[in-house]
Amino acid sequence: MVTGGAPYGLVRDAAIAVADGRIAWVGARAELPQDWTGVEQHNLGGALVTPALVDCHTHLVFGGDRSREFALRLEGASYEEIARAGGGIRSTVSATRDASDEELLASALRRVDDLIADGVAVIEVKSGYGLSIEHELRMLRVARAIEAKRPVRIRTSWLAAHALPPEFEGEADRYIDEVAIPGLEAAAAERLVDAVDGFCEGIGFTPEQMRRVFDQALDLQLRVKLHAEQLSDLKGAVLAAEYDALSADHLEWLAPEDALLLAEKDVVAVLLPGAFYALRETRLPPMDALREAGVAMALATDCNPGSSPLSSLRLAMNMGCTLFRMTAEEALAGATRNGAKALGLEAEYGTIEPGKRADLAIWDAPHPDYLSYWIGGHLLRGRIGAGTYHDA
Amino acid sequence: MVTGGAPYGLVRDAAIAVADGRIAWVGARAELPQDWTGVEQHNLGGALVTPALVDCHTHLVFGGDRSREFALRLEGASYEEIARAGGGIRSTVSATRDASDEELLASALRRVDDLIADGVAVIEVKSGYGLSIEHELRMLRVARAIEAKRPVRIRTSWLAAHALPPEFEGEADRYIDEVAIPGLEAAAAERLVDAVDGFCEGIGFTPEQMRRVFDQALDLQLRVKLHAEQLSDLKGAVLAAEYDALSADHLEWLAPEDALLLAEKDVVAVLLPGAFYALRETRLPPMDALREAGVAMALATDCNPGSSPLSSLRLAMNMGCTLFRMTAEEALAGATRNGAKALGLEAEYGTIEPGKRADLAIWDAPHPDYLSYWIGGHLLRGRIGAGTYHDA
Ligand SMILES: [Zn+2]
Ligand SMILES: [Zn+2]
Repeated sequence: MVTGGAPYGLVRDAAIAVADGRIAWVGARAELPQDWTGVEQHNLGGALVTPALVDCHTHLVFGGDRSREFALRLEGASYEEIARAGGGIRSTVSATRDASDEELLASALRRVDDLIADGVAVIEVKSGYGLSIEHELRMLRVARAIEAKRPVRIRTSWLAAHALPPEFEGEADRYIDEVAIPGLEAAAAERLVDAVDGFCEGIGFTPEQMRRVFDQALDLQLRVKLHAEQLSDLKGAVLAAEYDALSADHLEWLAPEDALLLAEKDVVAVLLPGAFYALRETRLPPMDALREAGVAMALATDCNPGSSPLSSLRLAMNMGCTLFRMTAEEALAGATRNGAKALGLEAEYGTIEPGKRADLAIWDAPHPDYLSYWIGGHLLRGRIGAGTYHDA
Repeated sequence: MVTGGAPYGLVRDAAIAVADGRIAWVGARAELPQDWTGVEQHNLGGALVTPALVDCHTHLVFGGDRSREFALRLEGASYEEIARAGGGIRSTVSATRDASDEELLASALRRVDDLIADGVAVIEVKSGYGLSIEHELRMLRVARAIEAKRPVRIRTSWLAAHALPPEFEGEADRYIDEVAIPGLEAAAAERLVDAVDGFCEGIGFTPEQMRRVFDQALDLQLRVKLHAEQLSDLKGAVLAAEYDALSADHLEWLAPEDALLLAEKDVVAVLLPGAFYALRETRLPPMDALREAGVAMALATDCNPGSSPLSSLRLAMNMGCTLFRMTAEEALAGATRNGAKALGLEAEYGTIEPGKRADLAIWDAPHPDYLSYWIGGHLLRGRIGAGTYHDA
């Protein structure tokens, strides 16, 4: 049973008292206060219990898939052949636009079910494949609709500044003015959006363009986050820190000295080894600099059809260890405490502490190390959602 | 529906006729012969059907786990600290010796269940953590016992020449004489063994030592296979070819010209990207040489507690593509047709053809490419075992 502290804050033979869906007490069972000994008890048989996992960076609402593009690349197809066969993010944009709301929700729920089976209870979902006001709003409505269908908490991010749709080719500034900013206002008015994100990259949007979107976010009292330093160092993390972002995500090209800015502003570094793996990147995030600066590091799946077709957060934890050399304890903190923090939900999720939600994962695993160690398979035995037990 | 041929031998709107647990006919539904139109039909709703998968290289019977060692390495522990904490293969040997038959079977079944959930119906299981005649035989009895508990076909391999137990420290030749060879004779007498394997490596056994074990295998009319060229080029593949091996496994250090010998003797190259990934190896098997020579390439999990703690064959397929640059079609052939061939079972498994067993996997996937493309999650919708349908 994990409560925070080191290593893992593991408590052997523990008890957790729950009232009204919140944790009321946690500690060694022998020390359980008398007032709790009379209430209904659920014996977990000594199983490992952790906070429910948090997947704080996904793009899991999308139409179509990119398996043909994946196969073509391996067959040595040229960029042009792949484009002709309908590859790239634009193929996901047109498949997303073409899909009905029902189709988008049904395919998203399959990926949500994969995550739930892996112990996840909180999922961030970004827009960014609609790329028109209408279709970006539609993606967020679908994301919100997940909560009514599955026992998960959904946090949405406005990511209109993800890519440029064909109808705005060569006109990124006009796209920001006519779609990203007014669409964000509409999304906020409809209460569809919890945070504002962007893809700050040579093949995405410039820091200056992101700044305009972020100014609008602040006007609407929304927190920001940013895809930063994935493929090059555009100083996206510096921008994120300047805007008091919840998180800066990817960070393979982060300059080590910029880790200090993230720490100073308490911006979470969201590491996404699934994309690193799938894109066969070789440059690692500056892990030592992040550690030395004391930056909180989260891990997420980045679940998306192009660069990270991954729906297992436990596998992202293993990749965080194997590829990024995180410790197993950092990996679990990344998928719980720091994932929650990257969503501004640290008061409710991510540790087993009085006052937090009683959303817990129960594992067929001998030790928390095992969750990052074993690759594949099904380790979840059950989950507690809002204080109620469910078999996995 | 996949029958062989290229690409994938995919037949759209197909029918498969099954009699007595064997495939009797396969092809386009419109061409189904009249004699089959009257029999009981099971409509799979247009789902993708492939041969059941074959995991042709595992070490999935073992005691204990190595999650603490995994975590210690990431924390920067020295070799000595890990050894003191009970790491390395010897920790698995002592945990395996200490476990009861029931414990060994129960823990193996969890990994078998993971594989079944991933579409696998044939699993090879090696001995090699007992390292005494008694405990090696016990491992194989446990492996055989899996068949009575789960709907899978098990093939066993005698791998006493896996590592040297502490009681034979510095006396590898005596171990071969006193354990590996007489134990094999006992295993064959008890009909516990389908093939004979070895770990031919600087940290394992020399080609000369393997030759003595293989001579005994041939006397017993057993086929051989070999862990070869994983960490160095000891010419294990040459030895495997000389002994008409079923397979040579790993092969990262295979000299490109030795691929010709494998092709000549029809030895399957079993590629194990899970171990490559977990050990953070950088040297790839000579893929082009294997292709040009026409060597059959299989893929397997190498499921084991140390170098490949992996129980998803679909993930091994993705790693085969992502890390080894196999095509998606090569990956599926590697987990079906060539996996069956690596076990000498190509007459019964691995393709959907008349006369083969009606063991099929039914997938929630739009195309065979998708099986290698999507990472994690649960794609199996159902399976047909010996002609009978089961939900996944
Ligand atoms: Zn992303
Ligand atoms: Zn092996």
